[in-house]
Amino acid sequence: MASVDVPVALLGYGTVGASVNRVLNEQADDIERATGHRLRVVKALVRDVAKERDYPAAPGVLTEDVSEIVDDPAITVVAEVMGGVEPAGTYVDELLRRGKHVVSANKQLVARRGAELFRTASEAGVQLRFEASVCAAIPVIKVLREALVVSNVHSVLGIVNGTTNFLLTEMEAGKTYDDALADAQARGYAEADPTDDVSGADAAAKMAILATVAFKSRVGLDDVEYSGIEGVDPLDVAAARELDMVIRLVGVARLTDGGVDARVQPALVDRQHPLATVDGAFNAVMLQGDAIREITLEGPGAGGIETASAVIADMVSVIGTMGTGFLQNDAAWRELPLLPAGDSRSPFYFRLSVEDRPGALARVAEELAERDISVARLLQHANGNGAALHVITHEARAGSLDAALDAIADLPEVHGRPTPLPVISQRGVVELGWA
Amino acid sequence: MASVDVPVALLGYGTVGASVNRVLNEQADDIERATGHRLRVVKALVRDVAKERDYPAAPGVLTEDVSEIVDDPAITVVAEVMGGVEPAGTYVDELLRRGKHVVSANKQLVARRGAELFRTASEAGVQLRFEASVCAAIPVIKVLREALVVSNVHSVLGIVNGTTNFLLTEMEAGKTYDDALADAQARGYAEADPTDDVSGADAAAKMAILATVAFKSRVGLDDVEYSGIEGVDPLDVAAARELDMVIRLVGVARLTDGGVDARVQPALVDRQHPLATVDGAFNAVMLQGDAIREITLEGPGAGGIETASAVIADMVSVIGTMGTGFLQNDAAWRELPLLPAGDSRSPFYFRLSVEDRPGALARVAEELAERDISVARLLQHANGNGAALHVITHEARAGSLDAALDAIADLPEVHGRPTPLPVISQRGVVELGWA
Repeated sequence: MASVDVPVALLGYGTVGASVNRVLNEQADDIERATGHRLRVVKALVRDVAKERDYPAAPGVLTEDVSEIVDDPAITVVAEVMGGVEPAGTYVDELLRRGKHVVSANKQLVARRGAELFRTASEAGVQLRFEASVCAAIPVIKVLREALVVSNVHSVLGIVNGTTNFLLTEMEAGKTYDDALADAQARGYAEADPTDDVSGADAAAKMAILATVAFKSRVGLDDVEYSGIEGVDPLDVAAARELDMVIRLVGVARLTDGGVDARVQPALVDRQHPLATVDGAFNAVMLQGDAIREITLEGPGAGGIETASAVIADMVSVIGTMGTGFLQNDAAWRELPLLPAGDSRSPFYFRLSVEDRPGALARVAEELAERDISVARLLQHANGNGAALHVITHEARAGSLDAALDAIADLPEVHGRPTPLPVISQRGVVELGWA
Repeated sequence: MASVDVPVALLGYGTVGASVNRVLNEQADDIERATGHRLRVVKALVRDVAKERDYPAAPGVLTEDVSEIVDDPAITVVAEVMGGVEPAGTYVDELLRRGKHVVSANKQLVARRGAELFRTASEAGVQLRFEASVCAAIPVIKVLREALVVSNVHSVLGIVNGTTNFLLTEMEAGKTYDDALADAQARGYAEADPTDDVSGADAAAKMAILATVAFKSRVGLDDVEYSGIEGVDPLDVAAARELDMVIRLVGVARLTDGGVDARVQPALVDRQHPLATVDGAFNAVMLQGDAIREITLEGPGAGGIETASAVIADMVSVIGTMGTGFLQNDAAWRELPLLPAGDSRSPFYFRLSVEDRPGALARVAEELAERDISVARLLQHANGNGAALHVITHEARAGSLDAALDAIADLPEVHGRPTPLPVISQRGVVELGWA
């Protein structure tokens, strides 16, 4: 059992690190009342102790020498808030080996080096917590590991990237992608180089972590197929509106009979679906399992103070469970196969540009029917001297739809090869009601 | 530190108790992998050991004698799943005094006797957890106490009664209150005597518990003003639809400058608001605080297995924090005044039946303006030989609106005294955009 006074250390003293120090100072009494412990930052690793800080640390706290933390036996809990895979990974590994519990806010580190670090933590009998690495203040990791411990979660649906959610929300309101991006950059919701966000790569790292924890099986970054929102066409946004849907970048991780299916891609989301109302830069994660049916958590997925709040909650939880053996096993204890790429199943939307002549629709329908794909809903618009066809299918195998669309693209009446988007309907269930 | 094998006991072996036993048996390996502990039900208190059970306990487990649990030093964790304030309260009190941790699924017990039981637990240095007492499988208590430990939550908005949410969802789809109720009873969503649910009393008990935990100050059952859905008029449901809103029974607990404001009442909820998409018998709780802005949790608020899942999570959490002092202080450590009844503030909706003569609207507007209430939106319908006026105000003091409506009811052009409903707009913020 830890004493009331608990010295802790930080790796990094940027926005998040300084927020952690400030909140621990300002709310020390509240934390002690709630948990019985008083956390105090005694060391913080930085590159340059002389640099000026908005919230300066107490004299002697900042250090450029990691051994002052690693070698101090009084420090039992360390928060890694420096970011980057190296040298953060080497430091965390060393801290765990020396029997110190570690809390990390580092998504890239956990997604890329998680397997090895969790093994090290488990062998050393310490905890590695990582709430802040996914969706900042939304406590989805704690909920999965501690509240849903007997729920057999088999599906995770998430809007886990605030930048793209903001961009798509703005595009829905009529902005072009470029204007929305410029606005997001001005507001600080998007980086100068937005690639990591808009490509889906950031969301894929989060889905890898979520799938690992939810399914108790290692899902690596490379196991998550992803595509971004750069190709989302204003025509698709308009069509979604007409279908009473919205377009969102959705992460999906499912435990199917054939294996784990984890992916991130733009999807059409029914307006009645809880994910459709996730606003602007917010995040949401929907968990489906045996005992719980479905639990959704929504909140801010980024921000300095939000991330600091999650880091502190993890530190407090580590201290509150110290020495009990709780959560000291590697959470990913079973091996599950990955679902082969084309075997993913969903209802899909696609848009066709066809020449307006007799038989065009019949031939499209035939190519779909041949591959066991049935149409749930169809909208047709005049479009110059042709027609735009908006098609929503019932649940179909992704590979079969791809084959059908290849064949459809070869039809003389059809212009171009459409890109299908999965459709997420009310409660994740394929009950579109338009059969 | 608890050993791997942890004998636990149950008070009660009904639907929830039997589910706890079954899940602990079936998922013992998973639980041990996640937490390092194996939980085994060794005793369960029942009224009649001879009664047949769907999932029978092992021989010797059922007992009619509570002392077999109270006096057994090997049992350190007990789940109270028997319901009712007595004798459950006396048993829980005795168990805590004897140094046993208790997990309760009993909303009435926690809301009515919480103050005294938490004091006892605190003095005995044990935990009293109660996740399952509010919203079943939605881990809102854990999130408030452990994840949002430094978030200064100042507002809790909730749909915390599934029965009324189902009824209102059905009424919105065109059913009468009576038909919706009969349907809910047939599906098991409503009791034969639905009073506790439809009157708002059940939701009030949950809001008292949530406000206590969120604000760290004792909010008793009597401190929560409530009204039910029996008086919701189909005309209001239709008006809500026209205003792009829905009617929901909403629990509100706010920490204001003037004190704690906790209430349950039917409200108009903007369709874009996350609470508006909460479907059928589901529950949702939205927490707003300093560090987190806003976090919403949604899921099933009732059910045997859902409740059992929360009970087990609490037991596992108790074992994982045993002996560390974690959460062993009474969570309600500060005294806060209650906001005087009329001082509650919100935008409001009300519906007036007026005679269609010149000056009627002007006189209504005058009564509002005199009390500093401004109109945000107005809809007028012909209504026989008069008119129905639907009014949405900007944020107003409830007491001032009541005074205005009393005066308006006295106007010769107005029929009846309207009942105002609070309006909950996007993100809880009064930005209706129709000024």
